Amino acid sequence: MKTLHVDLGERSYPIHIGPDLLGRTDLIQPYVAGRQVMIVTNETVAPLYLQQALQGFSAWQCQQLILPDGEQYKTLEIWNRIFDALLGARFDRRCTLVALGGGVIGDMTGFAAACYQRGVDFIQIPTTLLSQVDSSVGGKTGVNHPLGKNMIGAFHQPRLVLADTTTLNTLDDRQLSAGLAEVIKYGLINDPGFLAWLEANMGALRARDQAALSDAIARSCQDKAEIVAADERESGQRALLNLGHTFGHAIETGMGYGEWLHGEAVGTGMVLAAELSAQLGWITAEASQRARSLIVQAGLPVQAPQELDSQRFLELMAVDKKVQDGKLRLVLMRALGESVITDQVSPEAISRMLDHHHARARA
Amino acid sequence: MKTLHVDLGERSYPIHIGPDLLGRTDLIQPYVAGRQVMIVTNETVAPLYLQQALQGFSAWQCQQLILPDGEQYKTLEIWNRIFDALLGARFDRRCTLVALGGGVIGDMTGFAAACYQRGVDFIQIPTTLLSQVDSSVGGKTGVNHPLGKNMIGAFHQPRLVLADTTTLNTLDDRQLSAGLAEVIKYGLINDPGFLAWLEANMGALRARDQAALSDAIARSCQDKAEIVAADERESGQRALLNLGHTFGHAIETGMGYGEWLHGEAVGTGMVLAAELSAQLGWITAEASQRARSLIVQAGLPVQAPQELDSQRFLELMAVDKKVQDGKLRLVLMRALGESVITDQVSPEAISRMLDHHHARARA
Repeated sequence: MKTLHVDLGERSYPIHIGPDLLGRTDLIQPYVAGRQVMIVTNETVAPLYLQQALQGFSAWQCQQLILPDGEQYKTLEIWNRIFDALLGARFDRRCTLVALGGGVIGDMTGFAAACYQRGVDFIQIPTTLLSQVDSSVGGKTGVNHPLGKNMIGAFHQPRLVLADTTTLNTLDDRQLSAGLAEVIKYGLINDPGFLAWLEANMGALRARDQAALSDAIARSCQDKAEIVAADERESGQRALLNLGHTFGHAIETGMGYGEWLHGEAVGTGMVLAAELSAQLGWITAEASQRARSLIVQAGLPVQAPQELDSQRFLELMAVDKKVQDGKLRLVLMRALGESVITDQVSPEAISRMLDHHHARARA
Repeated sequence: MKTLHVDLGERSYPIHIGPDLLGRTDLIQPYVAGRQVMIVTNETVAPLYLQQALQGFSAWQCQQLILPDGEQYKTLEIWNRIFDALLGARFDRRCTLVALGGGVIGDMTGFAAACYQRGVDFIQIPTTLLSQVDSSVGGKTGVNHPLGKNMIGAFHQPRLVLADTTTLNTLDDRQLSAGLAEVIKYGLINDPGFLAWLEANMGALRARDQAALSDAIARSCQDKAEIVAADERESGQRALLNLGHTFGHAIETGMGYGEWLHGEAVGTGMVLAAELSAQLGWITAEASQRARSLIVQAGLPVQAPQELDSQRFLELMAVDKKVQDGKLRLVLMRALGESVITDQVSPEAISRMLDHHHARARA
């Protein structure tokens, strides 16, 4: 087992990474303050891991809530079911919520913990690669609105994260690739050494080699934690973590939530960011091609949907959270493993890149 | 105009108190960061003050949203209308929300500001005495759930509060009295000098003497600010502010939201707290009577509803936020002007006090 410490002053917390962590009461004990625990999970994860997780919390008054599975259920209405359950069981403000599942469960449960009685503790047990490398660090929680993804939410740090790599054995290939998109992202942002490691180990990762997965998760969390610790509320450099996300969110929103997986959209989004960087002359065409190859190797899509033409893309990007005072902020690349935040790219340049991207696919 | 500074480090903000502050762009200017402003108000306040408020924000791209008026609309569903409006108008994360109205509008708008894109700025323009002395300080925001009041919410500090005393001229007598309940509360908690001042000036306050009102608002905000600055997240002494509230919330929930005004329930709740303190021998019967007299003078009810017998009362109090690990925490009095937090009072003692309270009313 590897342990990482996310350093955020009085909101610091550990991330334990390794096999067979579910049910380890000894790891949980120091981080549950009250007597009441509610495990929130979904219909897919519950039959696989709920019993094991419940064993870990058998020392407390532990309840469970099983929500439907899927990004389309990340809504205020489903979120409210958590409050129905908490209030129905008379949970007080010293209770602990436990998120057992992927990013949707983590985001909704964390947001419920942020708002229940104005804030209670929560513990993350992410069961997908994406949530292990993404939601484990950063404290972002929230739900979607029909007009935009993650538009309603809060920053709320977990008390503890248990990333049990054994749970990745039941993850389907498509979900594993989606997680690898975020892993690649950390390499592209500011870790060229990790990028080279990924090029060498992508096969092992896709074959679910447990040691390779543990290494990749720990390195990803470490990279993210360093960025987040320096900028908890996303005023500055933290926005680097949005590499591929502004394009990616446009794809997710434009195609309807659930059609593309988040990681798939981010994978293609990073390809678009690389192509735009190359068009601007910031990186070479070869570097852009190298990024694209790694994303292909990870089993991810690299082509934006033809039905989203450049005009529609720009419309969708205009409602993104990264817009500031009407200016679109993008994360682009100065080199492979060195990304930068910019608000100096014109809509025309983005449009030209997208037209070119679509035209090449049709050719 | 009086100005108070609430000292919370980087979240510090000023409260301006006085007549004719609505529309004072000079006071607002320093506290609006972006270009977009959304004024949220209700159907009662809009015809009276919205035009004047809009003038104050004419330098920005300013939109308005008018919600229905009343505690029964303080729900997740109505709260979501704020997001519909913000996203429909493509507001970005540098926007400012303005709450123009009483406590319900302030709580819902502040909570929307806490959660929109994980947190945007907001400005409070409270137009009732209750909201001027209560919501102006403390950063508590939220909505109700059918199973409990203010159960879903966040701590989110405003950037600025404008307490325009002129708006109190259109407040009906019942609402004014409800506000006076919270004013009296500050005296009872830890300000015996203010309590004596209130006994001498209650007539002037109820006659809406502007100078007396300004003094009472400033003193109340000052008293509250001192408690909050020492304990922003309500882990300790801040709970003193709940004097009268645990009993009061039980009355509000038990009678259905909107039947009793919040301040009325708090007024009666403080009478019950005084009677329990006297029963325990912590204060004299004369002191309890003096508290009751001041609450009567303020035009507030001092008798709990007969339909809430002691058993029902205890049930309602059991779901209150002040419950910690199954123990009920109450604020009681050691003297008039010296309140304390305790979890050492048995349900039997509370029951006996309530039975006695009801019996005396029936006699």
